Amino acid sequence: MPDLDQTVRDIAEEMRARPDRGEVATYIPELANVDPGAFGIAVVDAEGHVAAAGDCDMAFSIQSISKVFTLTLALGKIGDRLWRRVGREPSGSAFNSIVQLEAEHGIPRNPFINAGAIAVTDAILSGHQPREALGEILRFLQFIAEDPNISIDEKVAASEQRTGFRNRALANYMMAFDVLENPVDYTLGVYFHHCAIAMTCRQLAMAGRFLMHGGRNPSTGFSVVSPERARRINAVMLTCGHYDGSGEFAYRVGLPGKSGVGGGILAVAPRKASIAVWSPGLDASGNSHLGRIALEMLTQRMGWSIFG
Amino acid sequence: MPDLDQTVRDIAEEMRARPDRGEVATYIPELANVDPGAFGIAVVDAEGHVAAAGDCDMAFSIQSISKVFTLTLALGKIGDRLWRRVGREPSGSAFNSIVQLEAEHGIPRNPFINAGAIAVTDAILSGHQPREALGEILRFLQFIAEDPNISIDEKVAASEQRTGFRNRALANYMMAFDVLENPVDYTLGVYFHHCAIAMTCRQLAMAGRFLMHGGRNPSTGFSVVSPERARRINAVMLTCGHYDGSGEFAYRVGLPGKSGVGGGILAVAPRKASIAVWSPGLDASGNSHLGRIALEMLTQRMGWSIFG
Amino acid sequence: MPDLDQTVRDIAEEMRARPDRGEVATYIPELANVDPGAFGIAVVDAEGHVAAAGDCDMAFSIQSISKVFTLTLALGKIGDRLWRRVGREPSGSAFNSIVQLEAEHGIPRNPFINAGAIAVTDAILSGHQPREALGEILRFLQFIAEDPNISIDEKVAASEQRTGFRNRALANYMMAFDVLENPVDYTLGVYFHHCAIAMTCRQLAMAGRFLMHGGRNPSTGFSVVSPERARRINAVMLTCGHYDGSGEFAYRVGLPGKSGVGGGILAVAPRKASIAVWSPGLDASGNSHLGRIALEMLTQRMGWSIFG
Amino acid sequence: MPDLDQTVRDIAEEMRARPDRGEVATYIPELANVDPGAFGIAVVDAEGHVAAAGDCDMAFSIQSISKVFTLTLALGKIGDRLWRRVGREPSGSAFNSIVQLEAEHGIPRNPFINAGAIAVTDAILSGHQPREALGEILRFLQFIAEDPNISIDEKVAASEQRTGFRNRALANYMMAFDVLENPVDYTLGVYFHHCAIAMTCRQLAMAGRFLMHGGRNPSTGFSVVSPERARRINAVMLTCGHYDGSGEFAYRVGLPGKSGVGGGILAVAPRKASIAVWSPGLDASGNSHLGRIALEMLTQRMGWSIFG
Repeated sequence: MPDLDQTVRDIAEEMRARPDRGEVATYIPELANVDPGAFGIAVVDAEGHVAAAGDCDMAFSIQSISKVFTLTLALGKIGDRLWRRVGREPSGSAFNSIVQLEAEHGIPRNPFINAGAIAVTDAILSGHQPREALGEILRFLQFIAEDPNISIDEKVAASEQRTGFRNRALANYMMAFDVLENPVDYTLGVYFHHCAIAMTCRQLAMAGRFLMHGGRNPSTGFSVVSPERARRINAVMLTCGHYDGSGEFAYRVGLPGKSGVGGGILAVAPRKASIAVWSPGLDASGNSHLGRIALEMLTQRMGWSIFG
Repeated sequence: MPDLDQTVRDIAEEMRARPDRGEVATYIPELANVDPGAFGIAVVDAEGHVAAAGDCDMAFSIQSISKVFTLTLALGKIGDRLWRRVGREPSGSAFNSIVQLEAEHGIPRNPFINAGAIAVTDAILSGHQPREALGEILRFLQFIAEDPNISIDEKVAASEQRTGFRNRALANYMMAFDVLENPVDYTLGVYFHHCAIAMTCRQLAMAGRFLMHGGRNPSTGFSVVSPERARRINAVMLTCGHYDGSGEFAYRVGLPGKSGVGGGILAVAPRKASIAVWSPGLDASGNSHLGRIALEMLTQRMGWSIFG
Repeated sequence: MPDLDQTVRDIAEEMRARPDRGEVATYIPELANVDPGAFGIAVVDAEGHVAAAGDCDMAFSIQSISKVFTLTLALGKIGDRLWRRVGREPSGSAFNSIVQLEAEHGIPRNPFINAGAIAVTDAILSGHQPREALGEILRFLQFIAEDPNISIDEKVAASEQRTGFRNRALANYMMAFDVLENPVDYTLGVYFHHCAIAMTCRQLAMAGRFLMHGGRNPSTGFSVVSPERARRINAVMLTCGHYDGSGEFAYRVGLPGKSGVGGGILAVAPRKASIAVWSPGLDASGNSHLGRIALEMLTQRMGWSIFG
Repeated sequence: MPDLDQTVRDIAEEMRARPDRGEVATYIPELANVDPGAFGIAVVDAEGHVAAAGDCDMAFSIQSISKVFTLTLALGKIGDRLWRRVGREPSGSAFNSIVQLEAEHGIPRNPFINAGAIAVTDAILSGHQPREALGEILRFLQFIAEDPNISIDEKVAASEQRTGFRNRALANYMMAFDVLENPVDYTLGVYFHHCAIAMTCRQLAMAGRFLMHGGRNPSTGFSVVSPERARRINAVMLTCGHYDGSGEFAYRVGLPGKSGVGGGILAVAPRKASIAVWSPGLDASGNSHLGRIALEMLTQRMGWSIFG
């Protein structure tokens, strides 16, 4: 097997040089202004060694990657009852589609499309104040990443609030079917804020460790979730983690992963590594263009595909 | 790790006793008349050892499981050009839905929904006579299963021909978009016949070995496909192999798998096992009810999930 | 031709006696508690004679019938520019469907489905305060009905506000496509209130006169809209006035008409009559069951069908 | 009221001069090769007087206009039982969409979209040979037009047969739901042939007379259908006669009408006129561009709108 540190450095170098970088998201200025030339990667292996390169310590907006952590929290809170309010099938449509909700009585197909992630956020809230729920999410991330320097980018949150009409439509639509329990403004407030959390690749790779280790945080020894739940979260990441590009990601990369519109991807090689990449340019499905390519190289060179 | 033979025998016994058996497909008499009490299982491990139990030597209609083998053949014939005619994203709709075709210009979402499998069959035909194409598919199966006693159930094929109006609609629809190249009757003739192939669990598990071994048939040493292609076929099986129950199968079983309406499932534990189960009763998504449960037990007890 | 007064009385009597009365809307208590036995009818003929019977002077919630009047007002305000924001094709889907909006970039199909009526309300607001817009709508109705006793049922409005999540979803969805210009709360506030206007059959039939007389209010002599616009509003009523039961209404009744979930229907026999019926029980498409039957009888007996 | 002959001549002249002529259908060579400069018009008034101008005696492919006559025949054969197999609501989608069929269990929305017209043709066949059914349709047209010189353009029929994959998809799809009763090839054979009937504007306007006269052929005195059925056919023409441009046609022209992809439109002014126009260039909805404009002028100048 090749040397991980060298492989990670090689990939970062190759990625930095590529002219094809996708298109940076433009729907809010805070994302539109990010340097498209950025590329970061960090890998934590089974022994806890961290290999990192490029802009691995530059914070970026994790956006939908936060949905992995809110799913974990919500399952911790209400267990499998969560699945009464959200499915776990790939959607076959865009991340913010409302069509599927109408066909399926307001139940979102999975926790990683916007509607599903809003329903998950609603389950975390469950009667508390938005501020408390947000604090809980943030503390959870700081705990599993073992890093207190993780925070919300308030500017991003404010921009999302201002422009999030489709998400407001999704939330109100679910309210009409009694899928949500808290006031729409509360739930969306928490949702917009947890999507606005800023993290570095290093922090993100650290936070993802429990998913490669059967649910346990190996350095603290604490069990974050049961081994079965860790496997199941990985399964949902694989089938649903890249919106309507999930099949493509499984086909090319062969790892469970979750992307965000900020250009980050968290991927898990079970028993082998927790991986975070970041490059702000997106492909047509809204997933990081170079991030996906870098992960494809990494799994191929390291032989980490879960498919053999 | 528990003893494989014992585990397989235990599971077969448990399955035989269960009262919940799903509903046998009724759209053609040949499937409707199958004994719902049947249950078979066969597992070939990495060393080539076969553990089998129950009705593991009773032939059943493999139906859509044949699509794994036709996909393999078509990729061998025309390579990645196949992906111009068929996608590889989960569909988010029923196996025989035509809605998606209209939205996406006649290109089926993946090779495992009916429309996609018809397009794959058309690629295998590529100008040949139906009889030749069918012979090729059958010989391929006999070769990789190392068993000449695999044949087509002509009664099943005739019944499918008689009732296959939705498939005829799908094929004509794709013709309207120039996605198919051969006469509809030719392509559907081959399609209905390869779905009517009858195999036992033992034969099916043998046939699936190349997918666990990086594309190589371990006993013959022949390479059926490249390691990368084997991984990719597994990836498509995982995201699309169980129609609109693919997310559920990944979540519960955690293995790439392909189901058929005859009640069979072929599953692959990369580097560890090729597995075939059969129980004719289906769940609401059209996948073998007890087959899925048996696979869930097997992966849990053997620790074979690809998700950690 | 039969005597109009007698015909109207006969129909009211027949309707009162029928056991099949449809189902009263139950989504808000104010509608749920209406007496299903009620039936009213009022007809203003070309000479201004009013024939009325049954509960013709009992006020009911006009609900979506208000959309005829807001369409008229919005066309008066911004003219054919309105058609940039809303189409005029029948929808082929339910009154509160959001699917169509996604397929057509946030432009509602016609001004009589909920989304379209919200867009029309937004055009009336155009920067004003909700209170002013509502005042304008109410004064317009009082003017064309020549009756100052038309008002908003504040209880109904409050209930609609409380439960109107689907409408809130529609409005936010259109905001995402820049189809609406005013704050969602403003537009929905006006929308919920104008749907809560209470009128009697007599008032409604009076208000509809301009649509039979080429846009002119015959008693005042004032021109409400041009003859061409009156024809066009009638055309939109015919093709879109009864949601997904518009074809059925045209087929059976043969008049332009607009129904409301409160059980009222306003229908226009061009050059012959303005007609209002009310019976609170609805059919499967959400249109007044006995109202439609009464109108079918009336047009047949009077020979008023526009189709010959 | 203006002079009809002069009005018709004026319109023909204006139309001939216009540079905007739409796009001629190109899916078969027989339609693609028609002169886009052609324009014909013929009007039969209530007294039987024929006003005609332009290419009013040039035969063209009536295509979907034939569906008005097959609907009339099928209702004559099986009466209102026809409505069990086909609806009468506008579709809100393209003329050859298959999506709606999937959502509504194989029942086409109305008799004028392709699927619906195929179901109507199947009802006419009802066990007979295609040749007999076609003969019946042709004789019916010759009878109501009082002209034996109406025939099928066999070249057009052959081209439609060759390219009609979407229609074949629709028919097979309905077969899957038992909506059709005859062999698909029989039904489609008749369908493709009756769409290939060639008629002149003069013949078409003559054939449409029964729809303006309460179902009676005024010159023969024979009753083709009951007055109620004539009204109802007109109603279906108004709501569904121009595919997804039906709302627009009602809005602008204000008459029941049925268009064909050959560029013809048959329109009915109840009690006043039967009108046929022809100009081969189509608009975006697949309806004759100048045909619609000519009808708009005619109804405005003659005051024939059914909407007042």
